Amino acid sequence: MSDQEAPLRNGVEHKIFEVLPFVDDDYGGVIVEMKTPMDTKTFVAALRDSFEQWRLQGKKGVWLNLPLSHVNLVEPAVKEGFRYHHAEPTYLMLVYWIPEAESTIPLNASHRVRVGAVVLNHNKEILVVQEKYGSLCGSGIWKIPTGVVDEGEEIFAAAIREVKEETGIDTEFLEILAFCQTHESFFAKSDLFFVCLLRPTSFDIQKQDLEIEAAQWMRFEDSASQPITHKNDLFKDIHHICSMKMEKSYSGFSKKPITTFFDDKLGYLYLNKQEDMEKPSS
Amino acid sequence: MSDQEAPLRNGVEHKIFEVLPFVDDDYGGVIVEMKTPMDTKTFVAALRDSFEQWRLQGKKGVWLNLPLSHVNLVEPAVKEGFRYHHAEPTYLMLVYWIPEAESTIPLNASHRVRVGAVVLNHNKEILVVQEKYGSLCGSGIWKIPTGVVDEGEEIFAAAIREVKEETGIDTEFLEILAFCQTHESFFAKSDLFFVCLLRPTSFDIQKQDLEIEAAQWMRFEDSASQPITHKNDLFKDIHHICSMKMEKSYSGFSKKPITTFFDDKLGYLYLNKQEDMEKPSS
Repeated sequence: MSDQEAPLRNGVEHKIFEVLPFVDDDYGGVIVEMKTPMDTKTFVAALRDSFEQWRLQGKKGVWLNLPLSHVNLVEPAVKEGFRYHHAEPTYLMLVYWIPEAESTIPLNASHRVRVGAVVLNHNKEILVVQEKYGSLCGSGIWKIPTGVVDEGEEIFAAAIREVKEETGIDTEFLEILAFCQTHESFFAKSDLFFVCLLRPTSFDIQKQDLEIEAAQWMRFEDSASQPITHKNDLFKDIHHICSMKMEKSYSGFSKKPITTFFDDKLGYLYLNKQEDMEKPSS
Repeated sequence: MSDQEAPLRNGVEHKIFEVLPFVDDDYGGVIVEMKTPMDTKTFVAALRDSFEQWRLQGKKGVWLNLPLSHVNLVEPAVKEGFRYHHAEPTYLMLVYWIPEAESTIPLNASHRVRVGAVVLNHNKEILVVQEKYGSLCGSGIWKIPTGVVDEGEEIFAAAIREVKEETGIDTEFLEILAFCQTHESFFAKSDLFFVCLLRPTSFDIQKQDLEIEAAQWMRFEDSASQPITHKNDLFKDIHHICSMKMEKSYSGFSKKPITTFFDDKLGYLYLNKQEDMEKPSS
């Protein structure tokens, strides 16, 4: 903040506040990142002076990033008209839309992404587990390893990691066989569940104790004939797709590294490489 | 809160606070939803009494849902050890992990989901737009309509909606041709971009003025021969897939309604229906 002497403005003593530190975003708005501690009174005054300037400059959205250490500024920001946008363990992002026109503030992340791993070996066995927690706990049902994709993690890498963590088995990613979108699976958020086909490169199971009750290689027909497979759409479809895959009559999406559209970052495109249907999948 | 008289405990005057209103979650934790206003002092006292009880009961994660109207409780909650988990415009969710063992608190939603819509007509023309904002604005590049999937919206429905909003064209969903995962596309969040193939059922373009500079049916070869198509991986791959699709030699993922695994909610499975490769796609 400025240490200048408070001057007179409109005949009233008025401290000059510098505007809050901000950078422009790509959409005519600004991003304020609070880095140094600030008391609430100073913050509100600086915020109001900043808004005066931003309005004159025709700014649109104002993003306010408050680290956990600045939690004292959350209440004053909301009282000045900010609304929550998203939060992570270490910060809260608030937003204020200045124009009269409808807000074009982008939506918060809306989906949790999960993977299920189909691991088939040369003996027509599928790698399955029983979990210690969750809705199937204690049911005796054997299921494929599943888990949540970490922030910044590739889908194919998450499938490999989950199989390794839960069963100790090493694998290579082959393709995404199918995926499923559902809603309100986790608070108000939606869920994308990618069924990945992996090729095992090791075979001795070492199950993880924290979350996994049991793990085994199970004859594929035995897995397919569990009662749940007939009762549940997703179990049924996954087994049907696996059957077709074993007969080389199904083609999922393979991965291909690409540089992305906007900023030349590395990403992965998942697409049907077709030739997979002709090549034996060893 | 209790209106009981303050009794003596350990010889010290001590007001009995009821525990905060909570429900159990499915994973050995509790969810506290603050609905009535509360001053910070009462809240902190009730929270401490609640924790005493939850610890005795062996509870694990404590979720604290603070609506925007309870913003006064954010700072005291953080000072009591809560951390942010996620936020939506109208509430902030905080979380506290009681056990000494490693936290199994599930991750926040990690992905924003976007769609791109490939709309091809019978004259081998593709529906393309120029946008008023964003990285391609003013570049003269024609691109497929794109947009963000709303919370709770089906991927295929989002593609149909974006095409209608941007160009006025009515469409039917055919299949997902490919998808792309990238990271840190929007603050720290990842991005899943689904390329959807749609069949137009109307043909007169009425472009939207707010975000769209221009819209047209463009000869597919002209779109494919734009310089960007050669320079950019995603443009190139999408055009290549479209070419194969027009020759009936590519199969994406069709949609199939299913009831979901955990709670019998309706969802959609996207999978290769195969027969699409044999049937003419009218």
